[in-house]
Amino acid sequence: MSASDQQPSPMPMHKYVPFDRQITVDLPDRTWPSRTITRAPRWCAVDLRDGNQALIEPMNAERKLRMFQLLVSMGFKEIEVGFPSASQTDFDFVRLLIEGNHIPDDVVIQVLTQAREHLIARTYESLRGAKQAIVHLYNSTSIVQREVVFRSDEDGIVDIALEGARLCKKFEDTIPDTDIYYEYSPESYTGTELEFAVRICNEVLDVLEPRESRPVIINLPATVEMATPNVYADSIEWMSRHLKYREHVVLSLHPHNDRGTAVAAAELGYMAGADRIEGCLFGNGERTGNVDLVTLGMNLFSQGIDPQIDFSDIDTIRRTVEYCNQMPVPDRHPYAGDLVFTAFSGSHQDAIKKGLESMEARAQAAGCSVDDLVWAVPYLPIDPKDVGRSYEAVIRVNSQSGKGGVSYLLKTEHHMDLPRRLQIEFSRVVQTVTDEQGREVTGEDIWRIFCDEYLPVTEGSGLAPWGRFALEGTRTVSAQGQEDTLEIDLIDQGERVTLTGMGNGPIDAFVQALSAYGVDVTVLDYSEHALSSGGDASAAAYVECRVSDEVLFGVGIDPSITTASLKAIISAVNRQGRHPQPEDRR
Amino acid sequence: MSASDQQPSPMPMHKYVPFDRQITVDLPDRTWPSRTITRAPRWCAVDLRDGNQALIEPMNAERKLRMFQLLVSMGFKEIEVGFPSASQTDFDFVRLLIEGNHIPDDVVIQVLTQAREHLIARTYESLRGAKQAIVHLYNSTSIVQREVVFRSDEDGIVDIALEGARLCKKFEDTIPDTDIYYEYSPESYTGTELEFAVRICNEVLDVLEPRESRPVIINLPATVEMATPNVYADSIEWMSRHLKYREHVVLSLHPHNDRGTAVAAAELGYMAGADRIEGCLFGNGERTGNVDLVTLGMNLFSQGIDPQIDFSDIDTIRRTVEYCNQMPVPDRHPYAGDLVFTAFSGSHQDAIKKGLESMEARAQAAGCSVDDLVWAVPYLPIDPKDVGRSYEAVIRVNSQSGKGGVSYLLKTEHHMDLPRRLQIEFSRVVQTVTDEQGREVTGEDIWRIFCDEYLPVTEGSGLAPWGRFALEGTRTVSAQGQEDTLEIDLIDQGERVTLTGMGNGPIDAFVQALSAYGVDVTVLDYSEHALSSGGDASAAAYVECRVSDEVLFGVGIDPSITTASLKAIISAVNRQGRHPQPEDRR
Repeated sequence: MSASDQQPSPMPMHKYVPFDRQITVDLPDRTWPSRTITRAPRWCAVDLRDGNQALIEPMNAERKLRMFQLLVSMGFKEIEVGFPSASQTDFDFVRLLIEGNHIPDDVVIQVLTQAREHLIARTYESLRGAKQAIVHLYNSTSIVQREVVFRSDEDGIVDIALEGARLCKKFEDTIPDTDIYYEYSPESYTGTELEFAVRICNEVLDVLEPRESRPVIINLPATVEMATPNVYADSIEWMSRHLKYREHVVLSLHPHNDRGTAVAAAELGYMAGADRIEGCLFGNGERTGNVDLVTLGMNLFSQGIDPQIDFSDIDTIRRTVEYCNQMPVPDRHPYAGDLVFTAFSGSHQDAIKKGLESMEARAQAAGCSVDDLVWAVPYLPIDPKDVGRSYEAVIRVNSQSGKGGVSYLLKTEHHMDLPRRLQIEFSRVVQTVTDEQGREVTGEDIWRIFCDEYLPVTEGSGLAPWGRFALEGTRTVSAQGQEDTLEIDLIDQGERVTLTGMGNGPIDAFVQALSAYGVDVTVLDYSEHALSSGGDASAAAYVECRVSDEVLFGVGIDPSITTASLKAIISAVNRQGRHPQPEDRR
Repeated sequence: MSASDQQPSPMPMHKYVPFDRQITVDLPDRTWPSRTITRAPRWCAVDLRDGNQALIEPMNAERKLRMFQLLVSMGFKEIEVGFPSASQTDFDFVRLLIEGNHIPDDVVIQVLTQAREHLIARTYESLRGAKQAIVHLYNSTSIVQREVVFRSDEDGIVDIALEGARLCKKFEDTIPDTDIYYEYSPESYTGTELEFAVRICNEVLDVLEPRESRPVIINLPATVEMATPNVYADSIEWMSRHLKYREHVVLSLHPHNDRGTAVAAAELGYMAGADRIEGCLFGNGERTGNVDLVTLGMNLFSQGIDPQIDFSDIDTIRRTVEYCNQMPVPDRHPYAGDLVFTAFSGSHQDAIKKGLESMEARAQAAGCSVDDLVWAVPYLPIDPKDVGRSYEAVIRVNSQSGKGGVSYLLKTEHHMDLPRRLQIEFSRVVQTVTDEQGREVTGEDIWRIFCDEYLPVTEGSGLAPWGRFALEGTRTVSAQGQEDTLEIDLIDQGERVTLTGMGNGPIDAFVQALSAYGVDVTVLDYSEHALSSGGDASAAAYVECRVSDEVLFGVGIDPSITTASLKAIISAVNRQGRHPQPEDRR
């Protein structure tokens, strides 16, 4: 048993060279590893630019405005809102922000531009009427970009940057009522020799003339993350020592996550002397993403440091971001994922329970609130309540003795793919049963509970039949351009009745038939899927209904997709009134 | 514009204290920041234990075996396979591995146990017949666990560990044919004072007697990640200096990801003197997960270092892990996410294209293969081909001029939620059109292409009608316990025909009617959903069919869910033969 037991892999390692053979970062007298973080950096949210450009479908104006308003409401004061010279959509959005008076006085918008005259002109045009703005000028400086993309030497690359900086200053006159600040990024900084990076930044600074009343932001992007995060920190400390006008320079970080260490790079780089961090909520952004501002901010909070950003309703933040980006936040995302305050292991659950009880006891003994105590609960790095989460997840899993995942079980074992709101509804039903029985529930138990609750009871199941209606048969007539006619035979409390309805489909016709019969149902949503492959497979239909004043689901399973849907409506109608709702509105 | 513009947040920071006021880690003469990683650590995959216990639905035996076989095939030599004394399922799985001869001779299984006699006895019972095994003993040592969970002082906690170690040695005799190695974890190490951590480890080592032929693993888990990763590295270097028998101790890391820096903690900790890393594929594990072994291994690879693990078919690895864990790998997951080799921005696409062309040119000039050159392409940290990915994503987006996300567009703008395989099918249709037209496609274009391809052409759409069949009307009769009868009026190339079929639902009946009419269709899968809320909303039906020997989708939209499904089948039948398939099997 030794490390040498591991065998060489067949992977083509020869294609890659270590970072330290590409770029030299030599700082044996580094000081950052002995520092700790004691206050929040200056934040800049780039969700509307770097984040947006990396989306499968970039945000439309309505989604962009939602994102902007979210960022403002959380407390961000610097927000990069687009690349107006590169995209008409971005230009129009900057105009919308300014002309619609959406920018609070203490918020500065930031716009990205390349160092070319017509692009800079267009950038300033987009800013007309803004109280203040940061013009963010960039050009690529890395070895590979110089050789492959620009085919230029160092002097040529410096000229691009200096010409851009001079043009920026020139165009200031076109919008004299706007206070302009500058940010310069040597893009692909991590692939740039440090000596060249500091040369180009210092020469740009000479042009932009930073001073106390108008500091200049120097932003050092890990456009591609290329080394362990300590190397990025070393390079930041080195740059911080070698930048001119340092006291009037705002040193800014912009880490990407290619090696999965963007959060660490930001934290160590901040310890190494940076003042400011650019990133996106939940780490959206090109490829593996920009550094995640939620994790960074919450990491500060968990150390007792005010992040100066409000994360107290993290679920609303998350839902808004998911809406804007049309991408989900992963289940294990720090602080915000669905599973991060959940313990499935019995010993973890037990320790959490003891920790919560101990805090309760200490608060009582001290005559104070639990919220006045220092948080100390095993396996929970922060109090879920501080981000608007409850202890439900922990408790829920406890009551199921670690067997959790009701809906996963139904999917795996029974191919039932429950809509999300039905998952929540059904987990409450299971909760009720487990609370009543006070024992561990098995997968079989869960399926029995599901059948009893949603599906008509079959003979030999050992369950007692219940519910007002049962389906006997249907006849439908459908002609192109006309309403469908449905005749349906039902058993109503033991009596056979035949109802007739018209509608634009069987569901609509059935709802109308029920309404004429005195049963008030509205279908709010439905979905349906095959339970296995093949045209003769059964279908599962899920219908969310309002029955009388109660909103609830019904489920139907049948080889016929039509019959499955009708059964689902009957299921919902039968269920109405079975469980009193927490707030019964009748 | 200054940092002071940021305002205090309303969050309750007072509940938390900085890590350095909880635990002292003082190592001003640290050496790790000047080191670089030059070879792979010893890996231990804990997917079947720490990963499995954190799943919403833990793996069954079949999934566990799939995971074990995947890990073995990738090259892992140490695999923690369960907690056999805590769970009958885990016990049975260890027996299955041993009795089924699933463990190669050069692979060591590892099992976790608490330090109690009946649990240790049961652990050894599970191992009977194994060639070799690592018994992993743990107890909790952190301040909060001592106080809240165990209500014990330091001596009491040491006694638990020592008693466990002694019992382990005692039970060795019960399975004399198995070579037993030991691992000890002071669980919740990151919340433990270093002096106490080293004391308990050294006393346990005194009992376990590490020697050259039988080294002992000391595993230092960041059970909860509590500080920046440099602090973890400092603590590892401190421990490495203070552990007894250091040359016969395998120092192991076990980082969790609560602060989003587990990968960094593992890398810096390894630089600080550790020998071994425990983690899970794609970072599964309690709460935010264990450290991700894929990212760690690929980070080595990207530096030209052999990870000694084979990641060359990352999509198969990912699919297997998703199957076993029943959790998706996020789109931005380093090296394996769907979006990590994709560039949406025009300037990124351009630079990538130039980089690839430059490598091609250099290879031609040198008379060698591109694979013999050092990889140097902007924005792509590694060659996607090295993990079995293609350049398709990049190229696809190029041909759509950054407008990508066809299926997202259909979902957002038209509420069409296409099944995954239909998304792929349709993106090929779009590709064909964009290649023919050679111009940027807009959202409107995409919708027109979709309508033309899948939906019957409506008047005034400007599209030319095509396709053999059109639906006129249907009549169905359905009775409980009997087959449905369907009469359907079709237009077949301008002629009206009426077909009749029987089946267990309208789809089945229609397929039978078509078959009798000489049209050979098999339904492989279907799904259906409402296009908006309300029973009178339209439904979209997606049907995957085999028509003649071609597998393809049809789509139908109609207020009636039945009619929508029938239209979808007609759509598939009409489409058959329209686009010759890449490999036409007829």
